[in-house]
Amino acid sequence: MSFKLLPKAGTYNFKAEPFHCDFQHQLFMGHLGNAMLNAADFHSNDRGFGMNYLNTINKTWVLSRMAIEMSEMPRAYERFNITTWVESAMRYFTSRNFEVATPDGRPMGYGRSIWAMIDTQTRQPTNILDINDGLIAKYIEKDRPCPIANASRVVINEEAKPKRSIATTYSDIDVNGHVNSIKYLEHVLDLWDLDWYKSHRIARIDIAFVAETHQKDILTLYVTEKEPLVYEVRITKKEEKGNGKEIEVCRQSVKFMNI
Amino acid sequence: MSFKLLPKAGTYNFKAEPFHCDFQHQLFMGHLGNAMLNAADFHSNDRGFGMNYLNTINKTWVLSRMAIEMSEMPRAYERFNITTWVESAMRYFTSRNFEVATPDGRPMGYGRSIWAMIDTQTRQPTNILDINDGLIAKYIEKDRPCPIANASRVVINEEAKPKRSIATTYSDIDVNGHVNSIKYLEHVLDLWDLDWYKSHRIARIDIAFVAETHQKDILTLYVTEKEPLVYEVRITKKEEKGNGKEIEVCRQSVKFMNI
Repeated sequence: MSFKLLPKAGTYNFKAEPFHCDFQHQLFMGHLGNAMLNAADFHSNDRGFGMNYLNTINKTWVLSRMAIEMSEMPRAYERFNITTWVESAMRYFTSRNFEVATPDGRPMGYGRSIWAMIDTQTRQPTNILDINDGLIAKYIEKDRPCPIANASRVVINEEAKPKRSIATTYSDIDVNGHVNSIKYLEHVLDLWDLDWYKSHRIARIDIAFVAETHQKDILTLYVTEKEPLVYEVRITKKEEKGNGKEIEVCRQSVKFMNI
Repeated sequence: MSFKLLPKAGTYNFKAEPFHCDFQHQLFMGHLGNAMLNAADFHSNDRGFGMNYLNTINKTWVLSRMAIEMSEMPRAYERFNITTWVESAMRYFTSRNFEVATPDGRPMGYGRSIWAMIDTQTRQPTNILDINDGLIAKYIEKDRPCPIANASRVVINEEAKPKRSIATTYSDIDVNGHVNSIKYLEHVLDLWDLDWYKSHRIARIDIAFVAETHQKDILTLYVTEKEPLVYEVRITKKEEKGNGKEIEVCRQSVKFMNI
């Protein structure tokens, strides 16, 4: 296949639709996260290394880590742009950054993500640079700033206490056939109630994905307060047809700010 | 306030973003329902009887019933249009219809809805025709077809059995401060698993809303099979600060078709 080279970064327009907004009329962080995944998907498909092509050769992208740091959130009815670009690409990992901005270009926040590519049959990592003769390497953009720290591995205190268990269902499962990455983020943010969100906003989130979850697996969330306003959450699953053993699927760190 | 008269019907463009689609790469019915609510919101705001204006005079719209009947669902990456118009408006109720169509105008399905208006302080119904000197009456469109049956009251068999209980959390609460109407639909559709959806599609849904639910209320879903492929679901709540009594919040009828 041959592809016309496009600009390295791609910008996609979104709107904070009112029924995607929370009680304070701000876009839910989960909807913003999904918009980032959609932007990543549009950008990579347009450039010849997206899921639409990968699925025809039994490969797919797997999100390994993600970090989001917002100084403000889009409000109901506001339009916003997500610009995304590939910062680096190696054999087994590629990093993709995001800028969220107002339509007139004022940055509202940033995201960082790390992705692996796997073979959908063996579930083993495959060489990203083999795709279309290393096409992704032509799109590496090192110069565009993404002024937030790298997405963290999120090391969790082993003494965290179980706080909530959740059964996964049909609407949790995305086009890839397993639980949508952003659902874990929503489950974590749901650990706090409306009163908390009246006086706190999310300053930064780090998510490290460890294993995939399937329909009917039971998720359990373990929470520790690492320092004031910083919480670490481990999510485990018990598989529907498993032996009852808990398997870690995801680790998150959430940093709040007082408002 | 004075408003320039716009066309009676309004058409809004949407895209079935891949991370709003299910494992079969079709838009989730819940996302379609939210898109309809967003279209209703855009249409009414543009025409001077939307929530943005109503909130300034301590009034709001309350969704009373909704029906959706789709012959096909938008697939991942496809654009679709939702056209919405007011079919009738009386003192205490107005009916609003929806057509979902491909960008070239081929209908994919329809929706019907009935809305009341309440005073946000007394929670009592208020006269819809009092708003901006009965402005809504200028927008009644009786001639445009909406070839599906009216949204049903959904009469439920009292012998339904409890099937699942769910705690409501931060991300269930929408801009109105209570559980998003469409969440009830998602909870009902989550009663079936991926295997079911591999061989069945949703032909029609009716939802009748009875009471509002607040954060931390516990929802319980009661299900009966009315006839083959037709299920009726009653949702009750136990209020967080209540006396443990169950209060009916919503009734739904879901009709499936074999595929």
